[in-house]
Amino acid sequence: MKPPAPWFQVRFENLDRETECNQGETLFHSARRAGVRIVGACGGRGVCGTCMVRITSGECDVLGSESPGAGTAARTEEWVRACLARPAGDCVVEIAPRSIAAVVRAEVGGQEVMITPDSVVRSHDVVLAPAIMGQGQGGGADADRVIDALRDDGAARIDLYALRELPGLLRGTGWRLRAMVRGDEVIGVRPCGSRSLGLAVDLGTSNCAGFLVDLETGTRLASLGIENPQAAYGADLVSRVNHAIRSPVGASELQTAAIAAIVGLARDLCGAVSAAPVDIVEVAVCGNTAMHHLLLGLPLSQLGRAPFVPAMCAAIDIKARELGFATAPGAYVHLLPNVGGYVGGDHVAVLLATENRWAKTTTIVMDIGTNTEISLIHRDSITTVSCPSGPALEGGHIGAGMRAAEGAIERVRAQNGLLEIEVIGGDAEVVGLCGSGVLDVLAAMLELGILNRHGRIGAGHQAVRERDEQREVLLAPGVAFTQNDVRAVQLAKAAIRAGIDCLLREAGLEEEAIERVVIAGAFGSYIGLESAVRIGLLPALPLARIEQVGNAAGVGVRMALASAALRDRARRLALRCRYLELGSLPGFQRVFMGRIGFE
Amino acid sequence: MKPPAPWFQVRFENLDRETECNQGETLFHSARRAGVRIVGACGGRGVCGTCMVRITSGECDVLGSESPGAGTAARTEEWVRACLARPAGDCVVEIAPRSIAAVVRAEVGGQEVMITPDSVVRSHDVVLAPAIMGQGQGGGADADRVIDALRDDGAARIDLYALRELPGLLRGTGWRLRAMVRGDEVIGVRPCGSRSLGLAVDLGTSNCAGFLVDLETGTRLASLGIENPQAAYGADLVSRVNHAIRSPVGASELQTAAIAAIVGLARDLCGAVSAAPVDIVEVAVCGNTAMHHLLLGLPLSQLGRAPFVPAMCAAIDIKARELGFATAPGAYVHLLPNVGGYVGGDHVAVLLATENRWAKTTTIVMDIGTNTEISLIHRDSITTVSCPSGPALEGGHIGAGMRAAEGAIERVRAQNGLLEIEVIGGDAEVVGLCGSGVLDVLAAMLELGILNRHGRIGAGHQAVRERDEQREVLLAPGVAFTQNDVRAVQLAKAAIRAGIDCLLREAGLEEEAIERVVIAGAFGSYIGLESAVRIGLLPALPLARIEQVGNAAGVGVRMALASAALRDRARRLALRCRYLELGSLPGFQRVFMGRIGFE
Repeated sequence: MKPPAPWFQVRFENLDRETECNQGETLFHSARRAGVRIVGACGGRGVCGTCMVRITSGECDVLGSESPGAGTAARTEEWVRACLARPAGDCVVEIAPRSIAAVVRAEVGGQEVMITPDSVVRSHDVVLAPAIMGQGQGGGADADRVIDALRDDGAARIDLYALRELPGLLRGTGWRLRAMVRGDEVIGVRPCGSRSLGLAVDLGTSNCAGFLVDLETGTRLASLGIENPQAAYGADLVSRVNHAIRSPVGASELQTAAIAAIVGLARDLCGAVSAAPVDIVEVAVCGNTAMHHLLLGLPLSQLGRAPFVPAMCAAIDIKARELGFATAPGAYVHLLPNVGGYVGGDHVAVLLATENRWAKTTTIVMDIGTNTEISLIHRDSITTVSCPSGPALEGGHIGAGMRAAEGAIERVRAQNGLLEIEVIGGDAEVVGLCGSGVLDVLAAMLELGILNRHGRIGAGHQAVRERDEQREVLLAPGVAFTQNDVRAVQLAKAAIRAGIDCLLREAGLEEEAIERVVIAGAFGSYIGLESAVRIGLLPALPLARIEQVGNAAGVGVRMALASAALRDRARRLALRCRYLELGSLPGFQRVFMGRIGFE
Repeated sequence: MKPPAPWFQVRFENLDRETECNQGETLFHSARRAGVRIVGACGGRGVCGTCMVRITSGECDVLGSESPGAGTAARTEEWVRACLARPAGDCVVEIAPRSIAAVVRAEVGGQEVMITPDSVVRSHDVVLAPAIMGQGQGGGADADRVIDALRDDGAARIDLYALRELPGLLRGTGWRLRAMVRGDEVIGVRPCGSRSLGLAVDLGTSNCAGFLVDLETGTRLASLGIENPQAAYGADLVSRVNHAIRSPVGASELQTAAIAAIVGLARDLCGAVSAAPVDIVEVAVCGNTAMHHLLLGLPLSQLGRAPFVPAMCAAIDIKARELGFATAPGAYVHLLPNVGGYVGGDHVAVLLATENRWAKTTTIVMDIGTNTEISLIHRDSITTVSCPSGPALEGGHIGAGMRAAEGAIERVRAQNGLLEIEVIGGDAEVVGLCGSGVLDVLAAMLELGILNRHGRIGAGHQAVRERDEQREVLLAPGVAFTQNDVRAVQLAKAAIRAGIDCLLREAGLEEEAIERVVIAGAFGSYIGLESAVRIGLLPALPLARIEQVGNAAGVGVRMALASAALRDRARRLALRCRYLELGSLPGFQRVFMGRIGFE
């Protein structure tokens, strides 16, 4: 059935897309409406000349941009502005190569993820006639005229702070400006040519990663990782949550630290590309549920104890200035949705970034950390748990544990009956053991028979010694792995493995049914998969089924920043996740105890 | 044509209204949808029992509120809850008298204005099951569950500050709360039974009037007038605007003073009815354009000099907390739309409150003050000007001028060749002359031949004396009206009358065509109409055509506070106003000079 109003069929031949163009509508606007990837820096006002097309068949009326009203028919082979061309019948159109909006490629574990830029904030250049003595409707007020000029772009209101800047800007720039429109709101007004930047933040418990993105093109301009300054109030999440619950001052300190981290990232990232934080017109943040609550100043007591209820899981948009961010004053912060009390927006970002690898397969997606979030994707359902794996796997609470820095043992192998080590920095003096080495040590100790199946260090091997009434294995002078360290790793790996067991049990699946395991997160990238399988952290699957994809959360939050469609996709992914609280599952404790030992 | 889905005709007999009820829809919801005035304190959730009806003909299925699912047919003569009754066919319904929402009557100049309460903020009681260990979609987060329960009422998101209060509130009240919903946003959460109050403010240059309104019923609970504390920075608007333009500190001082006035009104009004400012969930403010800009912290330099362009005329809603108001933290402030640089939302409020008296007649609506806003309504058009009448008419810049207080001369008459005075407080010692007396003095002086047609005081009368090289008329011991005072009033009345002249000229009308003159404002209520006509402030029309209606702006802003429909009406009225800048009209100066003298 044809739409009621007269319309024409328009084919964008080099993108292989067809759309219907209403009579009187421009090629540009019908392309934008249909999601056809056409560049238009000025938002289709005939100002910038970036939306060039030519009509290869059919006819268009083209308005002269210099003399509006002087319509002419476009000749074949002539390049014209799509925003000034209105079809006079069905037609076929070629978009100039430079006018096709780029698809941005991001890497997740060496594999590309496509991001078609489609920002929730759009820039539109506006040129007004100078104000004359107020006559007529609305008295010719500045904001009313700007909103009127942007009405076709959906604008209906203006942010108070943008409004405060508007009169001075218009008079300082000769009545030209670039307006940033988000939904129906003008959130910022800047001189023409100003950049529209976005900031994506993966607010992790230990580290915060920031990505500065050009929202027009979707390209990443700069990225930076810093330590989460909340660490001053406790390395692990539980001590921070307790600090916040104990007093409003504590909660405020932690909120301030999280804000400071993001403000610092914004400042340093902008500095790196000669931009200013005020150029940032949209921020997207993902983090676990506790980080989410701490950043927003939400109460934590109901989250910190059973039944561990978040104040909110749905995605939320708030004015950046409500958090004191030094961005464009009218900008919003979008927080990705949480899944449950211990599964936050960072896991949703991981799912978003890795979706193309697990769609239609039975997959385990996990992000190993102090809390390890695991989703089992099977048919159309996603079931998600969080395992309290503690810091041991990352080298925390391990006697000789350290960050992955020079002097850290990163690999351990059983070789000729001995423990052979690899150290970051090669010949550097050995200082300690980092996360990836921890799994290796256990695997090698099992291989050499130093550990029994209960996790007890035996006495027979030359590297074993007794000290302070417990046995330990000497890895290098002054660097030992103790019986207590073994216990800590056992608890961690049992928690994770029990999580996988419960997910499989709930779905009625055997381990063999897992077609793919996707391991996200910085730590997960460095672990030796053979060791992980050997100590029973992962099921004994063919290693080819297991992929390490690095900081997928960072890619996911960039995707949600750059594209409204992908942001919506994240929202729907979060809603698809069925959240299980492991502690409330019958028999969880038994499953957990069954995974403490080694096979 | 019938709607596509099955539906039934429902007649609410005692309100003489008919509506269509979709199959499955409750009587309550179809009534609300059709704007039938039915009470429903809980928003139609079967909780409060305030929406009682009985079916006088036809049949309804009634859900047992205690045992949902147990539907029974309502018997005739039985009172049931409209929110639990679903028509099973066409029916006739009687709404219980106590369940008919009141129509609030406000007085404008002794004539009633109807306000059907229809607040933009609606209260809904919500009862949740206690949270259990998170299982399932969304992890059972507090806000997600509340929004879900309110989805039929349009809620889709929650204010950050309301979100912060939610977890503690739910657990403190046994999982019952009252949610305040505005559009798609939950702006507040309170214990059940909390009040929903609204604050309407007429932010005048000299005085601020505040009205506390119960948003459920639309009734006025308290009202209060205070002096605008901005007076400390200048009695007249021009000095305040200049103070704000000169430095950001000055602008901030004036904004702070305006905010302090509203915060003080909120505190004192709430105190008077044992409520707290946090009970205020919506604020509506009207004021002239400069007051509007000062309150919002908008720049004034483009408004303060030609071509006098406002930053914004359209109505704007902002979070009350952005201005530091001590209301419910998620509440909004609605500012009524302005018409132009010197005609603000207070005049729109006057038009709204007086619309029922001028619809379909050729009418002049004016609010006399330091600036006098005048609209000429003729056929479907409204043309509006602002006249710089200065403070003289209100007794300002008049040697013996004073406020209308004890000892002020409020009436002057020519009697037996003498000037006879009436003093506020009867026998009180005469201290000065208030606004209403000013017009009388001039009229009486003309009557007695003391003033010639150019406004010069003659020498012949016994009350006339010479002092400091100018003539003056002694009204009482120590209280005189000087030649300079006469000049000041001449300028004021000429400005106003020239405004009327220009409006008539633009519309091609003669004075005689004016069917009605509506004079709003406190000052306008007290002037003697005969004097006003005698000195030429008003055209020489039959006095029966002239009405003094008092503080219509205050009534108008209450109307825009209490009813979304009336708020929208105000918006459309403002858009209908064609604004003329008098100074830019050709020949205005000549018209003005022609009105300086007396006829």
